[in-house]
Amino acid sequence: MALALRELAAQIGTELVGDPDGVISRVATLQDAGPDAVTFLANPAYRRYLSGTRAGAVILRRGDLGHCPVAALIAENPYAAYARAAAALNPAPTATRGIHPTAVLGTNTRIDASASIGPQCVVEDGVRIGPGAYIGPGCVIGTDSEIGAGTRLMANVTVCHDSMIGRNVLVHPGVVIGSDGFGIANEGGRWIKVPQLGRVRIGDEVEIGANTTIDRGAIEDTVLEEGVKLDNQIQVAHNVRIGAHSAIAGCVGIAGSARIGRHCAIGGGAGILGHLEIADHVQVTAMSLVTRSIHEPGVYSSGTPLQPNEQWRRNFARFRRLDDMARRLRALEKKINAE
Amino acid sequence: MALALRELAAQIGTELVGDPDGVISRVATLQDAGPDAVTFLANPAYRRYLSGTRAGAVILRRGDLGHCPVAALIAENPYAAYARAAAALNPAPTATRGIHPTAVLGTNTRIDASASIGPQCVVEDGVRIGPGAYIGPGCVIGTDSEIGAGTRLMANVTVCHDSMIGRNVLVHPGVVIGSDGFGIANEGGRWIKVPQLGRVRIGDEVEIGANTTIDRGAIEDTVLEEGVKLDNQIQVAHNVRIGAHSAIAGCVGIAGSARIGRHCAIGGGAGILGHLEIADHVQVTAMSLVTRSIHEPGVYSSGTPLQPNEQWRRNFARFRRLDDMARRLRALEKKINAE
Amino acid sequence: MALALRELAAQIGTELVGDPDGVISRVATLQDAGPDAVTFLANPAYRRYLSGTRAGAVILRRGDLGHCPVAALIAENPYAAYARAAAALNPAPTATRGIHPTAVLGTNTRIDASASIGPQCVVEDGVRIGPGAYIGPGCVIGTDSEIGAGTRLMANVTVCHDSMIGRNVLVHPGVVIGSDGFGIANEGGRWIKVPQLGRVRIGDEVEIGANTTIDRGAIEDTVLEEGVKLDNQIQVAHNVRIGAHSAIAGCVGIAGSARIGRHCAIGGGAGILGHLEIADHVQVTAMSLVTRSIHEPGVYSSGTPLQPNEQWRRNFARFRRLDDMARRLRALEKKINAE
Repeated sequence: MALALRELAAQIGTELVGDPDGVISRVATLQDAGPDAVTFLANPAYRRYLSGTRAGAVILRRGDLGHCPVAALIAENPYAAYARAAAALNPAPTATRGIHPTAVLGTNTRIDASASIGPQCVVEDGVRIGPGAYIGPGCVIGTDSEIGAGTRLMANVTVCHDSMIGRNVLVHPGVVIGSDGFGIANEGGRWIKVPQLGRVRIGDEVEIGANTTIDRGAIEDTVLEEGVKLDNQIQVAHNVRIGAHSAIAGCVGIAGSARIGRHCAIGGGAGILGHLEIADHVQVTAMSLVTRSIHEPGVYSSGTPLQPNEQWRRNFARFRRLDDMARRLRALEKKINAE
Repeated sequence: MALALRELAAQIGTELVGDPDGVISRVATLQDAGPDAVTFLANPAYRRYLSGTRAGAVILRRGDLGHCPVAALIAENPYAAYARAAAALNPAPTATRGIHPTAVLGTNTRIDASASIGPQCVVEDGVRIGPGAYIGPGCVIGTDSEIGAGTRLMANVTVCHDSMIGRNVLVHPGVVIGSDGFGIANEGGRWIKVPQLGRVRIGDEVEIGANTTIDRGAIEDTVLEEGVKLDNQIQVAHNVRIGAHSAIAGCVGIAGSARIGRHCAIGGGAGILGHLEIADHVQVTAMSLVTRSIHEPGVYSSGTPLQPNEQWRRNFARFRRLDDMARRLRALEKKINAE
Repeated sequence: MALALRELAAQIGTELVGDPDGVISRVATLQDAGPDAVTFLANPAYRRYLSGTRAGAVILRRGDLGHCPVAALIAENPYAAYARAAAALNPAPTATRGIHPTAVLGTNTRIDASASIGPQCVVEDGVRIGPGAYIGPGCVIGTDSEIGAGTRLMANVTVCHDSMIGRNVLVHPGVVIGSDGFGIANEGGRWIKVPQLGRVRIGDEVEIGANTTIDRGAIEDTVLEEGVKLDNQIQVAHNVRIGAHSAIAGCVGIAGSARIGRHCAIGGGAGILGHLEIADHVQVTAMSLVTRSIHEPGVYSSGTPLQPNEQWRRNFARFRRLDDMARRLRALEKKINAE
């Protein structure tokens, strides 16, 4: 879609400095943008590219205006303004309304006439699907689940029975919602399955990355509050609760009954043990393991530095005797101080 | 399903203390249970909720009976007894027998008349499916595979050719069984694919969590023995063997030809290198990396503690020179002791 | 397929020592091979099985010939020669050409007559599929994507719109290519989605393991160069570039805009942070975290050793005060040296 800069500035709520009739039809990077593209400067590391840009317009902070050789769109938060500009220039394609003839529907479904059910889908008995929802190819929606208005399941998504998914949720391919939690009871060395009887409840405006899995609760529900953003290949175990507007990067594993606060940010590959609580506004860095509750906002980490293998091997070996080192150091201190 | 306490006690094999005519129709937590619900007390941390419970009955150990204000079901292993009670009160819905008209069947399949093949499934040539098996929507079963009696593939499961799956196996959505192992031979800097010619063999009563992947063997088979329980998003490489009744938590990666013993428990996110052996009754804690064979039962761990980022950064930096610290400590000891 | 040793030797380019009329019909391990099987000796750890083998022929280095009791195929790189032999003896089954009647095709698709589109597939508008390509059961290929000649998507693969997949690429079940990258902009504590407008481009001869996910770029493309080999459950974030002939083991996570060189080898479960570069010929060992660019070829590692839990707990606790230990050691050194 092409927009005059005047229109684009109005749509994204920024002040325009430059020709309001300039036409923008796409986004690009500072380095690659041509006169038909809008770009942005948010990260100071890229400021060096500003003076040479050939973009049609740059979204930037007022302080960077002096170095901008082309039209500027002034924003306090250029990255958020860029997100809006990119959305304005690339509206989602309108899905065909209605139910594809190859989709298989159960009994007593309630599917809004404005929803789209794609080819090869299976919608089981009692499922409710809201206005404007998009169920992409190959999705399976289990008995009595509910999909809110405007929610999109992109393709090959599996939603198990009784799941409750809010409005404007975006679910990427391969996601599994509502599979059984890992509930097993040991009896004489053998495992007995513990029926998983809770549900998954997902709030509005949640996004769930490709091949992420969210297990149903054991007795009560697994809950993602509104605005939670999950990247790809995240594992959310039974009875986890993730607070509103928390963002979790790829490959994180969250064990059963963990409670994560609001506005948290969990780095990629981190692990969170079960039955603990993480306060609001906590950040955990990549591949850290959270073994206890975190009560204070802040940034938390674990792990050791990457090194050339030969150096690392020596340190690695010493770690085995770190406690011994600490005791020997203490003994030396006592001896020296006694002298 | 509603059951009189007399029936429930008989079904789960517990002694009943209380009104045998009390009617139970669901399970709940100690805190939330009402008079129609059975609950359980297994973890002493929840004992404080016992005296205030309004449950219809509590499954507990004899020693907790004195503090139970309602009917009690006495069990040595309350969690296992609860698992049985939950199953008794929530029987799995009976699947429709037979083959959905949208399923696509190859030639020479042998599908028991009591099995259920769901919509949008693909069952390739020569597949055998046993009595009472349930193949959920969107599953693909490759040529000449065998699915045992009572086994359930929930939805969107892929079973590749020649896989052998036992009886009463439960496979959650998105699982891939029998994909090629990661076999590549380097020749002059380029990789040649090594054909993966073994199979996957899965024993009876195994459970496999959502989006877990189990590769076929290179020459011989990848094997999961009976009663193995795998959580979600586990990667089992080619020629791995997992011993009977071992349980593996989410996001674990097991490299090629590793052999894991019986009755092991592997924590979430752990890694197990290839071509090693782990003895029976070994536990590995979350996110540990097993780099060598483990010959003795016991609990094993690796990793460093989570800390506020600022403290962690200082320790992290010191780790780079841990070997140097150890040498300097030794030198000091020599010097002091020589004095 | 059965081959005379003379034919097999010619096909895999090795010198034959032994009866050229011996017939080989399968591969096996050194220990298990019978007279109808070819096997190989590459790893010296298995040399002890050579003298007792009952194989029809062994692929080995010239230096091992003296201990071989049966026919030998002499190769400088026995594992690569074995890969060729296994492929010669096990040709991929010929897929049925053409489009299965249950597949759903959009408008303006261009599908070569020699390609195979399996049951329950969805091929959206404008998709191009090259000669000999195989699209297995349940795959979804998004609008305007391109699948090169000879490429195989095994089953239940999702390729999102505008993806470009080269020739002779092998994609295992459950893979997702071209899902949205994790692009979110924070505004006042809430996340705004950043449209993901780039594509995924995959070079020739790439292999992608089961349930791996590869996100599309934010503005520019995510790129896998030719000959890249990815194992299962790998997460490749937006705008990552992986250089030609690099191999990545299972469960690795690669964050946004990371650039990995050519001929790299990344161990299982490793993590690679975003916006960094890894030089050509770098190896990273299992479960290491790469937090900075790596400019020199070599082997790199992080992490601590696996220990019995009781010993580990003591070392783990000491790590919290490693910086303090280092300072105290320095203080002691100063004191001693001042004396």
